[in-house]
Amino acid sequence: MRAHPIAPPSDLLDRCGLRADECTGGTLRVTSPIDGSELARLHETPLAELPGLLDRAQAAFKIWREVPAPARGELVRLWADELRAARNDIGALITLEVGKIVEEGRGEVQEGIDICEFALGLSRQLYGRTIVSERPGHRIVEQYHPLGPVAVITAFNFPSAVFAWNAALALVCGDPVIFKPSEKAPLSGLATFKALQRAVARFGERAPDGLAQIVIGGAAHGEALVDSRAVALVSATGSTRMGRAVGPRVAARFGRRILELGGNNAMIVTPAADLDLALRAILFSAVGTAGQRCTSLRRLIVHRSVKQALLDRLLPAWASLQIGDPRAADTRVGPLIDRAAGQAMQQAITEAQAQGGRLLTGGEPMLAERFPTACYMRPAIVEMPAQTEVVQRETFAPLLYLMDYEQLDDAIALHNAVPQGLSSCIFSNDLREVERFIGASGSDCGMANVNIGPSGAEIGGAFGGEKETGGDRESGSDAWKQYMRRSTSTINHSRELPLAQGIRFD
Amino acid sequence: MRAHPIAPPSDLLDRCGLRADECTGGTLRVTSPIDGSELARLHETPLAELPGLLDRAQAAFKIWREVPAPARGELVRLWADELRAARNDIGALITLEVGKIVEEGRGEVQEGIDICEFALGLSRQLYGRTIVSERPGHRIVEQYHPLGPVAVITAFNFPSAVFAWNAALALVCGDPVIFKPSEKAPLSGLATFKALQRAVARFGERAPDGLAQIVIGGAAHGEALVDSRAVALVSATGSTRMGRAVGPRVAARFGRRILELGGNNAMIVTPAADLDLALRAILFSAVGTAGQRCTSLRRLIVHRSVKQALLDRLLPAWASLQIGDPRAADTRVGPLIDRAAGQAMQQAITEAQAQGGRLLTGGEPMLAERFPTACYMRPAIVEMPAQTEVVQRETFAPLLYLMDYEQLDDAIALHNAVPQGLSSCIFSNDLREVERFIGASGSDCGMANVNIGPSGAEIGGAFGGEKETGGDRESGSDAWKQYMRRSTSTINHSRELPLAQGIRFD
Amino acid sequence: MRAHPIAPPSDLLDRCGLRADECTGGTLRVTSPIDGSELARLHETPLAELPGLLDRAQAAFKIWREVPAPARGELVRLWADELRAARNDIGALITLEVGKIVEEGRGEVQEGIDICEFALGLSRQLYGRTIVSERPGHRIVEQYHPLGPVAVITAFNFPSAVFAWNAALALVCGDPVIFKPSEKAPLSGLATFKALQRAVARFGERAPDGLAQIVIGGAAHGEALVDSRAVALVSATGSTRMGRAVGPRVAARFGRRILELGGNNAMIVTPAADLDLALRAILFSAVGTAGQRCTSLRRLIVHRSVKQALLDRLLPAWASLQIGDPRAADTRVGPLIDRAAGQAMQQAITEAQAQGGRLLTGGEPMLAERFPTACYMRPAIVEMPAQTEVVQRETFAPLLYLMDYEQLDDAIALHNAVPQGLSSCIFSNDLREVERFIGASGSDCGMANVNIGPSGAEIGGAFGGEKETGGDRESGSDAWKQYMRRSTSTINHSRELPLAQGIRFD
Amino acid sequence: MRAHPIAPPSDLLDRCGLRADECTGGTLRVTSPIDGSELARLHETPLAELPGLLDRAQAAFKIWREVPAPARGELVRLWADELRAARNDIGALITLEVGKIVEEGRGEVQEGIDICEFALGLSRQLYGRTIVSERPGHRIVEQYHPLGPVAVITAFNFPSAVFAWNAALALVCGDPVIFKPSEKAPLSGLATFKALQRAVARFGERAPDGLAQIVIGGAAHGEALVDSRAVALVSATGSTRMGRAVGPRVAARFGRRILELGGNNAMIVTPAADLDLALRAILFSAVGTAGQRCTSLRRLIVHRSVKQALLDRLLPAWASLQIGDPRAADTRVGPLIDRAAGQAMQQAITEAQAQGGRLLTGGEPMLAERFPTACYMRPAIVEMPAQTEVVQRETFAPLLYLMDYEQLDDAIALHNAVPQGLSSCIFSNDLREVERFIGASGSDCGMANVNIGPSGAEIGGAFGGEKETGGDRESGSDAWKQYMRRSTSTINHSRELPLAQGIRFD
Repeated sequence: MRAHPIAPPSDLLDRCGLRADECTGGTLRVTSPIDGSELARLHETPLAELPGLLDRAQAAFKIWREVPAPARGELVRLWADELRAARNDIGALITLEVGKIVEEGRGEVQEGIDICEFALGLSRQLYGRTIVSERPGHRIVEQYHPLGPVAVITAFNFPSAVFAWNAALALVCGDPVIFKPSEKAPLSGLATFKALQRAVARFGERAPDGLAQIVIGGAAHGEALVDSRAVALVSATGSTRMGRAVGPRVAARFGRRILELGGNNAMIVTPAADLDLALRAILFSAVGTAGQRCTSLRRLIVHRSVKQALLDRLLPAWASLQIGDPRAADTRVGPLIDRAAGQAMQQAITEAQAQGGRLLTGGEPMLAERFPTACYMRPAIVEMPAQTEVVQRETFAPLLYLMDYEQLDDAIALHNAVPQGLSSCIFSNDLREVERFIGASGSDCGMANVNIGPSGAEIGGAFGGEKETGGDRESGSDAWKQYMRRSTSTINHSRELPLAQGIRFD
Repeated sequence: MRAHPIAPPSDLLDRCGLRADECTGGTLRVTSPIDGSELARLHETPLAELPGLLDRAQAAFKIWREVPAPARGELVRLWADELRAARNDIGALITLEVGKIVEEGRGEVQEGIDICEFALGLSRQLYGRTIVSERPGHRIVEQYHPLGPVAVITAFNFPSAVFAWNAALALVCGDPVIFKPSEKAPLSGLATFKALQRAVARFGERAPDGLAQIVIGGAAHGEALVDSRAVALVSATGSTRMGRAVGPRVAARFGRRILELGGNNAMIVTPAADLDLALRAILFSAVGTAGQRCTSLRRLIVHRSVKQALLDRLLPAWASLQIGDPRAADTRVGPLIDRAAGQAMQQAITEAQAQGGRLLTGGEPMLAERFPTACYMRPAIVEMPAQTEVVQRETFAPLLYLMDYEQLDDAIALHNAVPQGLSSCIFSNDLREVERFIGASGSDCGMANVNIGPSGAEIGGAFGGEKETGGDRESGSDAWKQYMRRSTSTINHSRELPLAQGIRFD
Repeated sequence: MRAHPIAPPSDLLDRCGLRADECTGGTLRVTSPIDGSELARLHETPLAELPGLLDRAQAAFKIWREVPAPARGELVRLWADELRAARNDIGALITLEVGKIVEEGRGEVQEGIDICEFALGLSRQLYGRTIVSERPGHRIVEQYHPLGPVAVITAFNFPSAVFAWNAALALVCGDPVIFKPSEKAPLSGLATFKALQRAVARFGERAPDGLAQIVIGGAAHGEALVDSRAVALVSATGSTRMGRAVGPRVAARFGRRILELGGNNAMIVTPAADLDLALRAILFSAVGTAGQRCTSLRRLIVHRSVKQALLDRLLPAWASLQIGDPRAADTRVGPLIDRAAGQAMQQAITEAQAQGGRLLTGGEPMLAERFPTACYMRPAIVEMPAQTEVVQRETFAPLLYLMDYEQLDDAIALHNAVPQGLSSCIFSNDLREVERFIGASGSDCGMANVNIGPSGAEIGGAFGGEKETGGDRESGSDAWKQYMRRSTSTINHSRELPLAQGIRFD
Repeated sequence: MRAHPIAPPSDLLDRCGLRADECTGGTLRVTSPIDGSELARLHETPLAELPGLLDRAQAAFKIWREVPAPARGELVRLWADELRAARNDIGALITLEVGKIVEEGRGEVQEGIDICEFALGLSRQLYGRTIVSERPGHRIVEQYHPLGPVAVITAFNFPSAVFAWNAALALVCGDPVIFKPSEKAPLSGLATFKALQRAVARFGERAPDGLAQIVIGGAAHGEALVDSRAVALVSATGSTRMGRAVGPRVAARFGRRILELGGNNAMIVTPAADLDLALRAILFSAVGTAGQRCTSLRRLIVHRSVKQALLDRLLPAWASLQIGDPRAADTRVGPLIDRAAGQAMQQAITEAQAQGGRLLTGGEPMLAERFPTACYMRPAIVEMPAQTEVVQRETFAPLLYLMDYEQLDDAIALHNAVPQGLSSCIFSNDLREVERFIGASGSDCGMANVNIGPSGAEIGGAFGGEKETGGDRESGSDAWKQYMRRSTSTINHSRELPLAQGIRFD
């Protein structure tokens, strides 16, 4: 029996602002990971159109940078308005297109709303600095100015929010945006973009043509954006492999980039942990979004003294996880994005076993009869005797490695001994343990949480990580500065011309 | 007659803390641009020693990052103390080694003192942020933590100050430093480093072995540092060509970099300028340091209505510039660093003439009889009919291109139509002109000054530029953040585990 | 003929959310300055009810401070929503109640919307600081916490916006608000408060009872709030006389206060001014709101060389100002708030004449036949030979004193030689003049504008002034810090107990 | 036998820069609390000289505010230099004059050195803000400008450091200082001031006459400073009674003030505390400086479950405290400042006993035979059944009240139920307890420490407290802003005159 067949999504697409002619007849086939059914056939942007598109972005920049920032803020306010109205619809489309459960689909749109409102507040700030000068009759001022067109290249797993994170900040900072959604999940991105387009229309004539543009396509489209001197900032989310290619290419043309690459996120559970809290956090962060968040929990490092007690709680809860159609209210784990993801997970488990691991639970394909062309996997836990090669690698699936430790210093060393540096957490109520973990000699990640899992960041803090994660930040805090250029002016308003450092040259 | 023969500098070297055995017998021959005489033969660091040196830096990092920042500040306070005591000696050595006039040599050391005192203040700040959380019983904190070893690769023209800029911040931020001075000017760097070593000795046992190290050598040494994963941050000053190589290499290994590359700095002189001020600024910034500052004035963009009046002032002053031995009190322009620099200047003049330029003054070699192996050039002004290819290129010599304009918008467009983006200035007392120049649609440089020349920054502001200049910042303002890693922690101190964006997952 | 008779405002009151039973039958008679007609009879809050009301505020504080700030932000977002919907209605009520022209009435509500959106952004910031410690294993953190109930006591001239400025920040900062509108203009305040109440209702149960309360009454009510220890912060707008009483009383009980008191705002017009711009700015800032803004222009200090040229523009424009019913589209100057205000204006003119002044234009009552119980005055300009006593006093009416100067230093000295320090401006395109005015030795006011008048601040900057204006700030920038208390924590997470300053005590 | 008779301090005074003629023949008799011997007879400043002195300060202000801030920083660098050289001497003088032990005397001078170096760093910062404007062609800038003369009125217990805290910041901020040391401890203040005078002399001619002045005298002198309009900022340290008088007087003349008044500082010891750390902290903070710090520990609130264990450690340690001549190396508790202080302590103990308290140890006078005119008291611990009236009052002596609690919320409520709000701490390694204490509903003090005592702040954080402690801050963080005035400028550089909030007025 095939329950919940995918309804023809034309109604939903329509409510999301996608016209029928946009969604049919194209070459980019979009399917649902829920059951492999086709959702749309989008028209790819001809590569030959990119130069013109980039020219329009540049032209838009010259106009948009002169629009006062608080007026630019009004645009993102309207975008938040549109997203709020379409929240459930775009959320449902995310569920269809990438298989997130309903709560997560909506939560992702909420993240877009949140960042728009944050950016609205920023639109009256964008604070620079005045600095005192060592010379009489001089003063120094540092201003932040608009940077130029921003290309936002996103991954399938956050098809809506990551665009919103980047675009809301970019637009308020005075930068046009060019959005290339993942070819695996272009519909949710397109729906989010359509909401922006509606906001632009309401905003009226002060928004120049070319302010927000979308490119539908694949790797070639991405590369064209990465290499274009017309793109001032490339914000790319994806794999470390992708980042290793993009980083040098952007650097070679002296462009700017924000890279949000792979994570290999761990949790340390100490004897002072609240195990009930830890349990809940492990479940959500290891299997939520079917383990396909860049911040998903992948490594669990537990003190030997509490390992068994934790497993006694974890294994039954893990076994009871409802896996299946993400549209169902009780589902907690939906499908993987595609068959390749499932194969990679199985391959990793095989390797882990070869490297001494013991599969505690899960790892097998599921629901193959009901959804023969989809990929449902039972989340797996593999206990490892050491942090072997496979553990040091990011496998984008609900696969959790379990390791134990005796001394906190060893746990932290283990934690840091992977090439990625995105997110991390400790569960402990012991102040000293906590401070050690979040301190200078603790976690080397961009995010080091305490008593919450590694995933599920709020937009108020800066998001991003160190080492092979890329080193950059987006979203809250002062991430906006990356979307602007800094200009330092020393202003002489005296009638003299003294030199710095007291040099005389007459 | 050869006046002012270079005194055997052994006394000076000694006063600068350089031992005789360090300065003799090596393979790196250091000569003075004043008369080509040999100053020292330094011992190059064997490449085979670099891995051990980098290990020591990593080991030092693990200790130094735990030393409280205000205690680290005490180290730079002592360094400032040592530099203040050795100011005139190191200044004199700079004069000998790179040919700066006496005032500038001392001024460069003063810049080191200034940054040490700035860093001393920072050592009790290094402020992170607390951020409110959307979840009850949670809070967010962003801390800045030490980053790791910093390699400082400098150019010949600021052999002392650029190291001090980087090292003072790095040390206070908790990072060991590895200094590779230019092979053209290692002595001044070594003297500055020796002052740091003396400070380290006074600081005592809390400074770990390997905290501050120096590498004497050339390109291969630089490349080894650039490519080493043990180097968390590469701070490299030099040509755009160098940066085009370094940037991608560091990006490929997910390292961090600060690039301070070429400039092609311009001044716009408007009808509302104080021409006397402009004149003084042109002289210092075009011919000071013999045009060999990255911020030297290279392009002069003058409104047609004041062009003649300015030239009437400029040409006689230009003609009266005293060129010669930089140790003489009345000298304003010393030698170029080497013969290649003089040839590049002559080549550029030839090209400029071929591209329609008119040589107004200078450009010829001087003092060849007195200093046959040195390179003294008369500073040149070439009037250009347009901003041709040669003008868009940085020629590291006292060569000034003159262009004119009618409308300020055209002048700004001309100003921005070069690949470099370091420093710039406008001379005007008209508020609207000034604001246009320093505003969002004005100069696209990192520094946009008003009524002072492009060169001679104070250490309070951030130093650096956009486009092919590299995009990074060092010295004052919040440049210190580049020497640290940011860690964002969401701390749950409640007994609940709410998810962000209101997601429920039970 | 009496044009535009005041429509019975019951419809308007109803649209503003004021119930008929609230607006009738009370003891506080509210009349319109347009024609003296009665608008409502409000019920004063019995003084005996204040203790209970303050208890409720304290109880609400204990709950509200625990609501996460971003959630508190949602409340002000809803308030902005309500204000946007009611913008024209509340604007019209402001026109009726205090006589502002229609544009200004609506603009005042817009200011409330603006600050709500600014506060919405703040609700994810409220940044504290982390600070490095001099002791190993220690760190310092400064957090901002909610302060307690805030009493907002406003004046008649901004009956809506000043409450919104304070309440939006206070609510986001975690503080309940108690609003006492001016007894001369309680209706507009009440309408603004009702919009907040609707937002609170939409916000739902997380908003505690007592979060936002209003007190209708006069001086006794104000004093009760000023003296109550339950009020953590008194934000009072009004006269210097009021502030001189309030400041010490709040200080005596160690409370906090924000005082926004009188201004005596001047404009300096230099020979480098754009006189057309200056003319427009003078008109709006001297006669807008009938000269009844705390930032209204009261003193015009003109360089002798341009005085006549300015007057040649100003006097005809002044003469053509449409004075009358503020509801009429072409009216630029409405009535004064009451007869006393008109008498004070006439008294000041008389004194000014006695002190050597020459009345250039205006000063006479108008429209007395049409509006016998209202007070319309023709705006006056009095040329003064010196800054005599009457000029140093704030007269809250459209009365402009004209003085001239020869040297800019003298103009600045004249400018600063009054006891008030709110707002000021210079009109000049000369950079040096401008910088001198906004520099350390320039205007001593809290606001020192350039080429815009002293009135009409945006909400992004901090609003307030020095000297007898009170010294405090509200609205944008970091004014929010006044609504919070700062808590500095040094956290020792080591196993040692070192003392600061290296003291040993074992 | 009278050991360690006070050496005639003339040598010491001389080394501290105090001339014999300054220290003899005057009307202000200065005695040592060690044995009551006379140290000096200072000449009081005639009250009639104050107006002239204030005029000089005002004149100095007009010059000093124009000296670039980094140059002003050089002055405090020299002051730090002088203090470092005189550290042990001034420390010894503090010991003589107020009875601190040697370590503490030196530590106090170190605090002055620290703040000078912090201020040196600030001297290139004093950052204002640029803010984006809602109007095209406009920008907003907020600058901090020098404020005016600052009067620093200090208490006996920090006769050197508190002046340094205020003066270092004031001088760097551009403000002249007028110092009135406590009449009980003018010599240490004078010595600190002399070091500043030597720095001023080295600084040279850019320091105007009247930049730093001292007033020797008592209450009448203080009142004259408090009431003078020439004093822009009164920074007064002392009792709540003093502050209750000063606050309203300064407010009445619209001056600014920094009040650092009484504290009633508590420590909460929870079951999760490290009792050994707690013990050490209690000892230092309760009896250090003989309990005469504003941050001394006065209330100990211990969880019932650990009370006995803590007392078992505390009472023997308490009994072993060496009390006596503070110059002796093993002394930990020196004399009280005078007999009145001892009487107040005894009176408080008597009251406490009457209110149900039980004296656990100490409270009796000591060494009366050896030092008949001095006042040595054995530190006392009184166990209280409740927080009665006497406990809510600050008694400036080594008197510690002990209370217990069952629930942390009750402990915090008890903690906050006093009128003072200076410093506080919790000893606990439980994260939740700690966060609760330093959070919005925790300690209501300005300082809320964790695992360190309430006293002994570093200069990096802001120092000061809430409620009757005054509400102000000095020393680190952004306390410097109180020594400056903020100026907000909206700059129109366009050719239009748009109004804020979109208002039209043509």
